Amino acid sequence: MLKGDKRALARLMTYVDNRHEDLMKIMSEVYGHAGCAYRIGITGPPGAGKSTLVDKLIKHFRGQNKKVGVVAIDPSSPFTGGAVLGDRIRMMDHSSDEDVFIRSLGSRGSHGGLSRATRDVVCLMDAFGFDTILIETVGVGQTELDIMAVAHSTVVVLVPEAGDTIQTMKAGLMEIADIFVVNKADREGADRIYGELLTLSDMYSSRWKVPVVKTEAVNSKGIVELLRVLSNHAEFMKGNPDSHEHAQKILEEECLDIFLSEVHSSLASRFKKGGAYNTIHAGLVDRHVNPYRAAGELLGRLQWKK
Amino acid sequence: MLKGDKRALARLMTYVDNRHEDLMKIMSEVYGHAGCAYRIGITGPPGAGKSTLVDKLIKHFRGQNKKVGVVAIDPSSPFTGGAVLGDRIRMMDHSSDEDVFIRSLGSRGSHGGLSRATRDVVCLMDAFGFDTILIETVGVGQTELDIMAVAHSTVVVLVPEAGDTIQTMKAGLMEIADIFVVNKADREGADRIYGELLTLSDMYSSRWKVPVVKTEAVNSKGIVELLRVLSNHAEFMKGNPDSHEHAQKILEEECLDIFLSEVHSSLASRFKKGGAYNTIHAGLVDRHVNPYRAAGELLGRLQWKK
Repeated sequence: MLKGDKRALARLMTYVDNRHEDLMKIMSEVYGHAGCAYRIGITGPPGAGKSTLVDKLIKHFRGQNKKVGVVAIDPSSPFTGGAVLGDRIRMMDHSSDEDVFIRSLGSRGSHGGLSRATRDVVCLMDAFGFDTILIETVGVGQTELDIMAVAHSTVVVLVPEAGDTIQTMKAGLMEIADIFVVNKADREGADRIYGELLTLSDMYSSRWKVPVVKTEAVNSKGIVELLRVLSNHAEFMKGNPDSHEHAQKILEEECLDIFLSEVHSSLASRFKKGGAYNTIHAGLVDRHVNPYRAAGELLGRLQWKK
Repeated sequence: MLKGDKRALARLMTYVDNRHEDLMKIMSEVYGHAGCAYRIGITGPPGAGKSTLVDKLIKHFRGQNKKVGVVAIDPSSPFTGGAVLGDRIRMMDHSSDEDVFIRSLGSRGSHGGLSRATRDVVCLMDAFGFDTILIETVGVGQTELDIMAVAHSTVVVLVPEAGDTIQTMKAGLMEIADIFVVNKADREGADRIYGELLTLSDMYSSRWKVPVVKTEAVNSKGIVELLRVLSNHAEFMKGNPDSHEHAQKILEEECLDIFLSEVHSSLASRFKKGGAYNTIHAGLVDRHVNPYRAAGELLGRLQWKK
């Protein structure tokens, strides 16, 4: 994979899907080769035109001869595996381009499964040698926040109809957004929402003043401006003393994600095997033991080495 | 608290907030007294009129002399602690009603923190003796899915403008919804979206045919019909053979949530204490050890009793 073999990359991606037993070891080795790609997160409500925007960004980066990886994540589609988003981008004539790699991810159950899978996939793409990685997801809830932690710059895409979203989700939007985009800016109400986002940015921005960009992705309008503010943000992050702390927090979260998901699978397999764990599990599902007591018993069986 | 002391209930709620060290033990005792309340989840995108709907439902249940607990959750508002949603309902003249108890919850970091806090709060309300518990949250992503697992019946509220949401989130909507509501049904496009939801329900429903109800919550229209289908769903769940399996899955998830969040806090405190865990943590944030390796080292220090 590190030699640029795309089939090897694809195979490792399936390791991520199946939670292959060697995954930890492999990712640990791969990790050292990652860190060169610029990671851009694109999020926002359904219908905001994120896929079209991603398509235009891919075209731009390809024009600069950069290799582009795309991770399309749909936290709410356990059945499709998130393939809808990925397919949508794939259909936009990048399918024949050797230097564009698109991967879809859907829901992975709870307990950080999706954010871990995202981290793994992004890390693989990064180590493989993609220059830019675009991470597209739907929504601005907790899951999306976790997912977007892997991005260097996060773009929140809204549309003129999103006034209610802004009012209700103020704080959440500001926590996740490095850049706001008002897409479909030719529609009625675009100026009003643009103004609301500017106000929000004025009120809540800290060191980095969150810029607001109007785009019409379908007509390729505003893309150059978006790229300009993206590059500003990348510059800012390099010089920002908070970035270091932020990066540390991300590393800690990454480690916790990996650790807890392994503990989770480990417990799940113990439940199946028989013995004390199986007994606790049986007591739980038979309603003889309540979940708090069962969790307490499990915690009692766990020992931390000094 | 079990004697009906509201101040005791409020105090236990702060135990949930602070993750009090006795919480596990307390919850384990309280759990046995819960199980009588009917738990209704209300979710949907921002601006769908969920709070107004909740307000009308409260009025109805109060008219039947039922005690009502409300948990208002905003997964995307780490700063406000979800208080916006709660305040909105509180302002609707239930503040002086002794038998309505409203609790707001905001983001709790990742790793299931919010769904665990929700479970704890709902369990406390249930054990305290509320007859109906309304759980309101924003969005239809993974986090909301986890949260809604505590509800017996989940209502997804949409508005005529939500066509895009439906197209993009089909599978996610169907996974979470027991009932669809088209609120603000006097607006243009209501019939179209009503038809789309009926089609979705026809295509994807299994044993339970997900009904679609039109409401105008502001004008109290459609509330009686909503209550009728809610009671149908409650009846259905009693007789449904899948319900048992579903309930077992929920118990397992509950137990995992509690277990993993305790492992998480346990690790976090070990990181701070010095010794081997502190060394691993330091290596991680200094970038000497990558997150996969660090997680591997931590896993190596964890022993499961036979």
